[in-house]
Amino acid sequence: MKIIVDGMGGDNSPQEIVKGSIDAIKELDVEIVIVGRKELIEKELTKYEFPIDRIEILNATEIISNDEEPVLAIRRKKNSSIVVGLEALVEGKGCGFVSAGSTGALLAGGLFIVKRIEGIERAALATVYPTIKGVSFLLDAGANVDCKPEYLRQFAIMGSIYCDKVLGIKNPKVGLANIGVEEGKGNKLVREAYKLIKESNINFAGNVEVRDIPEGVVDIIICDGFIGNVILKLTEGMAISIFSALKEEFTKSLKSKMGALMLKSQLKSFKERLDYREYGGAPLLGLKQPVIKAHGSSDAFAIKNAIRQVKNFVQRDVINIIEENINISK
Amino acid sequence: MKIIVDGMGGDNSPQEIVKGSIDAIKELDVEIVIVGRKELIEKELTKYEFPIDRIEILNATEIISNDEEPVLAIRRKKNSSIVVGLEALVEGKGCGFVSAGSTGALLAGGLFIVKRIEGIERAALATVYPTIKGVSFLLDAGANVDCKPEYLRQFAIMGSIYCDKVLGIKNPKVGLANIGVEEGKGNKLVREAYKLIKESNINFAGNVEVRDIPEGVVDIIICDGFIGNVILKLTEGMAISIFSALKEEFTKSLKSKMGALMLKSQLKSFKERLDYREYGGAPLLGLKQPVIKAHGSSDAFAIKNAIRQVKNFVQRDVINIIEENINISK
Repeated sequence: MKIIVDGMGGDNSPQEIVKGSIDAIKELDVEIVIVGRKELIEKELTKYEFPIDRIEILNATEIISNDEEPVLAIRRKKNSSIVVGLEALVEGKGCGFVSAGSTGALLAGGLFIVKRIEGIERAALATVYPTIKGVSFLLDAGANVDCKPEYLRQFAIMGSIYCDKVLGIKNPKVGLANIGVEEGKGNKLVREAYKLIKESNINFAGNVEVRDIPEGVVDIIICDGFIGNVILKLTEGMAISIFSALKEEFTKSLKSKMGALMLKSQLKSFKERLDYREYGGAPLLGLKQPVIKAHGSSDAFAIKNAIRQVKNFVQRDVINIIEENINISK
Repeated sequence: MKIIVDGMGGDNSPQEIVKGSIDAIKELDVEIVIVGRKELIEKELTKYEFPIDRIEILNATEIISNDEEPVLAIRRKKNSSIVVGLEALVEGKGCGFVSAGSTGALLAGGLFIVKRIEGIERAALATVYPTIKGVSFLLDAGANVDCKPEYLRQFAIMGSIYCDKVLGIKNPKVGLANIGVEEGKGNKLVREAYKLIKESNINFAGNVEVRDIPEGVVDIIICDGFIGNVILKLTEGMAISIFSALKEEFTKSLKSKMGALMLKSQLKSFKERLDYREYGGAPLLGLKQPVIKAHGSSDAFAIKNAIRQVKNFVQRDVINIIEENINISK
């Protein structure tokens, strides 16, 4: 299986991307096509020993930065690693694409170049959400800030299939993010989405109170991209604020400084549990081929995991299953 | 000044409500009308010494519970403490109303009985939001789950006036809750609200990233009631989850148990900072008279503070100032 990787995206490119790709070919029985500036990637590759026939470089001279307007960037930078990579995907040069680059550009490129599965109204960015118990899976994480109820129904179906097939969570429990648990709670969008999702052939647990989301009460959290992004960013902001405030409290007196020192390893293990960068990439669900957004700060380990996600995605036939389920359950 | 207090609302009624009212007449130079079951309130009053001419009881035999559908409850329970209290307010028997009862019923009653200020499209529930620096002020906290851009503009103006006049924050910094800071970020509602608020005569700081809200980067957070409630509930859920997870980590080993013990007082002081019940009541801004929702678990101290809020509300002429500013800045 050949997987295409954006060599230029993210904070640690191309070093960590190349290293993660090398690890993947050694551990995951895949071949890799790295897209990006040929001379830079070749230079990185000289650092490692690996079966030379399992890595290929596809030259792309441009890079799309996070600051660029996504749609314009995709249209203008025809020789960027994202555009070249996605076009190679469509041409069959690989069976999935991983990028740690601009989320917006990857989403725009996914929609324009790879295109949506027939019957899918919107592609959703699906990400892990760290909870006390482990992780939940949240979609849409920010791709669609204005949604219709039908989009949310489709997100629920796609999320269920992905969780079952790729993450191995059988019959995953799906909750609709809301401000109360009773049917009829929430704004117009979620009230109408509730009715549609209820009719779908998935394990719908009804509304999930946002207060309970950090406890990990459901496997999949469904919401529009605005709410999804609010939930993710506030979670991050709260974790950062609480830990910096605790640090401050802890350094107030000698007694608590000693206490803080003793608790250091416990605090670290707790912080790691909250760090969702640990969990690899976020798939763009609803596209005709697998596209995975790796975190911008991905290291080699995260890249290798994202490559593994693509492999599972393909082997477990996720896209065909989504297509079948979207159209029969309408 | 005479202030009307719902004697039957909240978890600690009538005991704490009566105690808070007694404290208020002693400390705040106000008179109190307590609404509720006469025999119960009289019995409570016998516990205290106080100037008898400064407290009056208004009999109301019914109670609206938190489980009742608010609009129906207001229509049917004409002899409930909320309906009797709000009607007394309109009849001029007092100049403001405090209740720790059902938020929904208080809001519905406020709209039907007290009514909105002319020019105000929606009344908003405005609440404090605990931050690392102290508190911010958030509206709408959940009264209006579906909003139009103009509502958000009005919330921004009302919030500014209230913060300045009642909370004493001069020229308060107003931020629009969003998923990015740049103009043009967010969903349709916030993009359009941004343009309207920008034209208003307030200290508008633009979008505030929800990630930064816990840091206390603005004085006032503007959002629709669905997002507002999501922000409040997720903040509460995160705080609860992080503290219970820390507790778990801390009790894993003897070493950390000792550390935890040493840090106990620091943790407590930190928890208190996050507990927004500390900060008293939430005004319903946009009504023709002051109505304050006290937290359901309010003790006498919180009730006294809510009564003080009404006093400031009246003395600083908040309602007239809102009315003037809404109509000139349109």
